[in-house]
Amino acid sequence: MKSHTRNLTITTPREREIRDITPELEGILKESGIREGLMLVNPMHITASVFVNDAEDGLHQDLMETLERLAPSGRDYHHHRTGETNGDAHLKRQLLGQQVVLAVTEGRLHFGPWERVHYAEFDGRRPKRILVKIIGE
Amino acid sequence: MKSHTRNLTITTPREREIRDITPELEGILKESGIREGLMLVNPMHITASVFVNDAEDGLHQDLMETLERLAPSGRDYHHHRTGETNGDAHLKRQLLGQQVVLAVTEGRLHFGPWERVHYAEFDGRRPKRILVKIIGE
Amino acid sequence: MKSHTRNLTITTPREREIRDITPELEGILKESGIREGLMLVNPMHITASVFVNDAEDGLHQDLMETLERLAPSGRDYHHHRTGETNGDAHLKRQLLGQQVVLAVTEGRLHFGPWERVHYAEFDGRRPKRILVKIIGE
Repeated sequence: MKSHTRNLTITTPREREIRDITPELEGILKESGIREGLMLVNPMHITASVFVNDAEDGLHQDLMETLERLAPSGRDYHHHRTGETNGDAHLKRQLLGQQVVLAVTEGRLHFGPWERVHYAEFDGRRPKRILVKIIGE
Repeated sequence: MKSHTRNLTITTPREREIRDITPELEGILKESGIREGLMLVNPMHITASVFVNDAEDGLHQDLMETLERLAPSGRDYHHHRTGETNGDAHLKRQLLGQQVVLAVTEGRLHFGPWERVHYAEFDGRRPKRILVKIIGE
Repeated sequence: MKSHTRNLTITTPREREIRDITPELEGILKESGIREGLMLVNPMHITASVFVNDAEDGLHQDLMETLERLAPSGRDYHHHRTGETNGDAHLKRQLLGQQVVLAVTEGRLHFGPWERVHYAEFDGRRPKRILVKIIGE
């Protein structure tokens, strides 16, 4: 069994942003030389998500608006007693889904026709890391 | 390390439907010969979910009604500017949870007493594929 | 490839509770001797979640209050026709996220600075099991 571990670092200029990270993941897979296995893609920060969906800007707006409706910013969250102001970001990350596991088949990420991997940042403007770990052969 | 990769194809007669796919997954595990490992079950389409919960029709209705309340159909979603009409289906899939990883122990799917794997379709009536990938020994 | 499988059993005194299970997971990893791989952490009961977020009590209250708002208890759910009264617990578990996969690197759980693994119980006061399965080398 081989394993390959890398960090991706992303700094979003905006507080909230969705970004397609599929090309970076394909690059990490290629350098690993692994042809059959699984890839875990997990944000190392707890106000961000990694998820798979369509790379379509309108949909990304819909996701952000839906999450704002379900877990609004600007509320007096209990978490804010610690001095933090990002309670909504922690909640949004859980509702969207925190991480994904991808199949690696014949040396490639094994996707359906519209599947793309995205990073969703809810508390950005700082460097954030995403852990990518592949195991296989 | 062994790996085993299969597609399940499902066409739901209704637009939205929840279906227990545990027997199909057990069949794929059996043909793999893998006795210890992990199985990824991932819909290859981005308006569907794979999740684990009770195989109880009333609960499935509750899930569908809750998702309709949180991400209603019939809204004028930004995604619809592309000509699509299924914006709510993309949102529902994210809220329910997109994929699962299952444990394989002594040649069987390692479940608690009520765990069953389900496919939730939010934009059906067409053939859809689910990727099943097992790695282990 | 090595694999290591264990159950954690938890009985929460309260019906709903969030508990940090990171120390127990680190103990299971240590006894496995696995240094590179993946760890699946999956509740074997379908009214509970395993998720990764900050170990901060205020945030845990915010999560519980948000989930109660999105999937309220005390409703007349279809699931209750079976005699059950915990329909909301099944729904909350799906919205929060049912399971996690963790990276194992150099013999340790590979986390960002604030990542902690939590068990969220929505129908407690009974012994519940969490399946922990590690594969790797």
